Amino acid sequence: MSNTRGKATALLLAAEAVFLLLFGLFVDYDVAAGPRNNSLSMDTTLDHYYPIYQDVHVMMLIGFGFLMTFLKRHGFGSVGFNFLLTCFIIQWSTLVNGWFALIGSNAGRILINIKSLLEADFAVATVLISFGAVLGVASPVQLIVMATIEVVCYNVSIYVGIVQFQATDIGGSMFIHAFGAYFGLAVARVLYKKSQTQSKKEGSEYHSDIFAMIGTLFLWLYWPSFNAGPGSGTERHRAVINTVLSLSACAVVTFALSAVTDKKNKLDMVHIQNATLAGGVAMGASADLIVQPFGALLIGSAAAIVSTLGFKYLQPLLQRTIKLHDTCGVHNLHGMPGVLGVVASAIAAAVADRASYQDSYHELFKNASRTSGANGGYQIAALAAVLGIAIFTGTITGFLLKLPIWDNLSEEELFEDEVFWECPEGDWNQESQNDTNGVEKGGEVSALA
Amino acid sequence: MSNTRGKATALLLAAEAVFLLLFGLFVDYDVAAGPRNNSLSMDTTLDHYYPIYQDVHVMMLIGFGFLMTFLKRHGFGSVGFNFLLTCFIIQWSTLVNGWFALIGSNAGRILINIKSLLEADFAVATVLISFGAVLGVASPVQLIVMATIEVVCYNVSIYVGIVQFQATDIGGSMFIHAFGAYFGLAVARVLYKKSQTQSKKEGSEYHSDIFAMIGTLFLWLYWPSFNAGPGSGTERHRAVINTVLSLSACAVVTFALSAVTDKKNKLDMVHIQNATLAGGVAMGASADLIVQPFGALLIGSAAAIVSTLGFKYLQPLLQRTIKLHDTCGVHNLHGMPGVLGVVASAIAAAVADRASYQDSYHELFKNASRTSGANGGYQIAALAAVLGIAIFTGTITGFLLKLPIWDNLSEEELFEDEVFWECPEGDWNQESQNDTNGVEKGGEVSALA
Amino acid sequence: MSNTRGKATALLLAAEAVFLLLFGLFVDYDVAAGPRNNSLSMDTTLDHYYPIYQDVHVMMLIGFGFLMTFLKRHGFGSVGFNFLLTCFIIQWSTLVNGWFALIGSNAGRILINIKSLLEADFAVATVLISFGAVLGVASPVQLIVMATIEVVCYNVSIYVGIVQFQATDIGGSMFIHAFGAYFGLAVARVLYKKSQTQSKKEGSEYHSDIFAMIGTLFLWLYWPSFNAGPGSGTERHRAVINTVLSLSACAVVTFALSAVTDKKNKLDMVHIQNATLAGGVAMGASADLIVQPFGALLIGSAAAIVSTLGFKYLQPLLQRTIKLHDTCGVHNLHGMPGVLGVVASAIAAAVADRASYQDSYHELFKNASRTSGANGGYQIAALAAVLGIAIFTGTITGFLLKLPIWDNLSEEELFEDEVFWECPEGDWNQESQNDTNGVEKGGEVSALA
Repeated sequence: MSNTRGKATALLLAAEAVFLLLFGLFVDYDVAAGPRNNSLSMDTTLDHYYPIYQDVHVMMLIGFGFLMTFLKRHGFGSVGFNFLLTCFIIQWSTLVNGWFALIGSNAGRILINIKSLLEADFAVATVLISFGAVLGVASPVQLIVMATIEVVCYNVSIYVGIVQFQATDIGGSMFIHAFGAYFGLAVARVLYKKSQTQSKKEGSEYHSDIFAMIGTLFLWLYWPSFNAGPGSGTERHRAVINTVLSLSACAVVTFALSAVTDKKNKLDMVHIQNATLAGGVAMGASADLIVQPFGALLIGSAAAIVSTLGFKYLQPLLQRTIKLHDTCGVHNLHGMPGVLGVVASAIAAAVADRASYQDSYHELFKNASRTSGANGGYQIAALAAVLGIAIFTGTITGFLLKLPIWDNLSEEELFEDEVFWECPEGDWNQESQNDTNGVEKGGEVSALA
Repeated sequence: MSNTRGKATALLLAAEAVFLLLFGLFVDYDVAAGPRNNSLSMDTTLDHYYPIYQDVHVMMLIGFGFLMTFLKRHGFGSVGFNFLLTCFIIQWSTLVNGWFALIGSNAGRILINIKSLLEADFAVATVLISFGAVLGVASPVQLIVMATIEVVCYNVSIYVGIVQFQATDIGGSMFIHAFGAYFGLAVARVLYKKSQTQSKKEGSEYHSDIFAMIGTLFLWLYWPSFNAGPGSGTERHRAVINTVLSLSACAVVTFALSAVTDKKNKLDMVHIQNATLAGGVAMGASADLIVQPFGALLIGSAAAIVSTLGFKYLQPLLQRTIKLHDTCGVHNLHGMPGVLGVVASAIAAAVADRASYQDSYHELFKNASRTSGANGGYQIAALAAVLGIAIFTGTITGFLLKLPIWDNLSEEELFEDEVFWECPEGDWNQESQNDTNGVEKGGEVSALA
Repeated sequence: MSNTRGKATALLLAAEAVFLLLFGLFVDYDVAAGPRNNSLSMDTTLDHYYPIYQDVHVMMLIGFGFLMTFLKRHGFGSVGFNFLLTCFIIQWSTLVNGWFALIGSNAGRILINIKSLLEADFAVATVLISFGAVLGVASPVQLIVMATIEVVCYNVSIYVGIVQFQATDIGGSMFIHAFGAYFGLAVARVLYKKSQTQSKKEGSEYHSDIFAMIGTLFLWLYWPSFNAGPGSGTERHRAVINTVLSLSACAVVTFALSAVTDKKNKLDMVHIQNATLAGGVAMGASADLIVQPFGALLIGSAAAIVSTLGFKYLQPLLQRTIKLHDTCGVHNLHGMPGVLGVVASAIAAAVADRASYQDSYHELFKNASRTSGANGGYQIAALAAVLGIAIFTGTITGFLLKLPIWDNLSEEELFEDEVFWECPEGDWNQESQNDTNGVEKGGEVSALA
């Protein structure tokens, strides 16, 4: 019985009490959100980030939340736990991101502003990606524990990648998508049960697939804000353009491949819901680099190929051979396209010509003393480190989540809202009722015979 | 028979004709939207308000509209009448808000700009909250009459609270949420019929609950725009931060309490759809005050407690004891959290230290000659006045709506789209058909016996 | 058999390869998105257009996409092919729009920035309107071919209307709505088959109508961004105000007329989903003109009348008499209101007083040497030219699409997702199952008799 009375409640209330305490001890408003000083000129931080922050916010809550409602009997859990995780992580990552930012500084307080909130949403995205790998197979208690650990590991990986290796990754191909995917896959591998792959509930129905498209489309259309959000100036403008182009090419190629790989030449909603977004993932690390418009189309097209073929051929293979069950296919949408994106950024960095970048070279490539070739190499080195951290910490987290003190799901509880939610009568109950009718009628008929 | 031929049509066409006339007589473009004068520097009013206006607009039409689609047989009416009311009130409140703003001025024309449109949406929000209290039990004709009256009463309450008492309430805890809730509850009390509480149609089904989450999430994520919209400078920035934090804490605590108050420890969609938003309501009145980040978490947590327990325990009690039927539970989402928000703002105002607010003190607290303690007291006094106006005018409005000249709903017409909408065949008809099948089969079986 | 193996795939992959090549040959970043030059002051193009671009983007993908999901068995195709067309056209129209903009210039490269992306979305809108006319009756291959041709014709029409006639049309009443509608209607007329009008699948169900309202509401609320997007200064501000007012009046009048034209006085979801938007269409051409607030209400009210009566009376008449089948009723939403909008703009132009427009006269009316009366006349002349081009090129396109080399749909394939999509079991299959049950039971009953 996984839904143990009070365990989730106790965990959440304790967490909120700790957040209250730690916010009291550590968190202040940044000067941009503090008392007004009319002698200073108007601060424009809010104007610069707010509309883009809201776009990213939509991606977290509507985008990820509805994308995962494709499961026919896990709509409440998908959109509900996605919501809970987001709210939990906004607070927790404000603290953890803040502490990491204080490393090596003399300051002792975390100063919060709209940019911290945007960065909190990036931590949210990372955990929501991992959530996709264990959707329907992890309990809310397990998810909260996972989120708590993952936010710390995510910051370690950024510390290594950005501070130590000085890699560039404006849109998070490496730190968000690849990290979130491989961390989540490691957790999923450890939690694997044979019964997962046999559940009849792990499927969609007609309307749940349409609900999922709400998620897909909001992710797709606000993705430029995700990739361009942290930037400014012409770099931000370029990141928007590159991301729109990459996503457009990606969707066209995904439709093409989805049809041709099906034996009746029909489109598969799984591909349209997911692989169409791979162009956003893969564009992340080089969104602000001068890859040229055709380069963006190329990256998007390549991402579509990797992702669609991943869903079609690699995912079933991995499940059969290495017992990797990946509910949302995050390996295909975030894992491989993330790696592809880092490789693309490494190439773009290696061929970057300082003159053509003019004054933005030192903005985009933090270590001006390295050659362009070295910058490319460090992208790959950082990727290797990030993947290593993700898989290592994800595996440990997986074993922690298997401890019997958390709510482990039993076989019949997988992919099923009834376990954690009061469910109204409706489509599903009605359908069951129909099944029952069928059985009864069968009985009736035989009674007549 | 409530759907009287032509009554709604006549009312709406007459209203639109009156709007046309009154706009012709009273409304002009503000100079910021008038002829361009190149010798003046570029006006930035539109840039400052437009993105936030659109966020609020989404809250009105998608947020409120879909939040109310949780009813299994009132989806068309929820989203449709919400839409109609919004469009009606945008026009009517432009006039009424404008006339109230002219009080004490020499000007005779209402000058419309993006800020007037934002303020019109605040009037919309107030009426939509009241709509929630009578959802499914008032006819469209009654709703239009209610909206017409309520917009005037809402302006009276603002006039008393802001102009006379000089209270502060950037996000509308008092003037929008508390006013809208108690006005609507007064109407609902007067319209109460015993049959309301026995309707089998007043419930959700699986997919209608997922539709409602679209509303919840868009309300949740754009709420910072609602609370920060009218502000500027560092105050606006602070309002965004406080609201995000309050809402995040609120959602975490709501999940915790929803589970623990259920006898099977399951989550209740009603709480997740509604009580998670109480943190936005309660943060309203002090969103731009220096409550500190941990203070925002505290307000959000308290709102979650009040709201969730309200849904669970108080609402059934009020229905049983004082015959208050509140379809959407607006008392729990807007009423009590609104009052809580004003109390929080009173405390924040009373302890406000002029020095720590620097140049924003006189922006936030209009009456600089009052002590901070007095400012706190006036917040409570204004609240008392607003509640009094809301309950008094709501009650009168309720009796007006009971006049037989409007379309009163009969018992079998409650919570039912078929009354006002051409309904396609589909889930519902099919379900009825199943029920019928069941009955027929029952008959069949007994015939066989 | 319309779903021929590999044809759509081949077409899409070939198109993407051509896009890659042509982008490589022709497309560069605009200087606003190019290398940063710190000696130049910060470019604000992105800030000016980005939030509005995203609103328009939502309209394309969520707005149009979900509006068309009203069909009970074409949800995947509506939202899916809408998505595919958008991604295809973003790329193709970047090229075609760019080439047309180079006419008469010495430059040989297309410079892409956020404004080009916004203009690409306007081309998307035009094709999506035409898509509505043939929804469920054209295959994806036919749609891609149609889009390819239509984007070119759309640019021809703009070239004639804007460059030659120097007409004004900020919101696209003429170039987007009227053009897209009449082009699509011409295609639909040529593709007409008697069986189209007899399909039992061409209808909605309860939840598909609620999905469609997601589209309607996002279109309605972001429409001010569509009409004001290309503008700046006080003209943009005015376009926002005019559009909000026009849409509000339109929705109120639509509700009134929908009820009164129904014999049971019930509201029709088709009207609420569509005719409420006609105020945005009709306001397009004069959104930035000084029509006064009451003028905006008048335009919106007139659009509601034309559109609602069009849906109710004209559409069935046209289908019966001239065999024009218009799945989404684009003639009523985009065609007639577009024409109405141009007429309104002609009147506004003809009565425009140079003095009252101050410095914006020459911005709004490009040819300062013409009298106001002449400007009004040229609006009508441009409309005639645009309608001529639309109907002529649409007819030719229709005949091209009938060539047997494309996937023509057979009778039983109309309005049906099963043809092109892997469909999960669910509502629909369940319903069919119920029907079967009924039949079986019928058999059973007669066997008993």
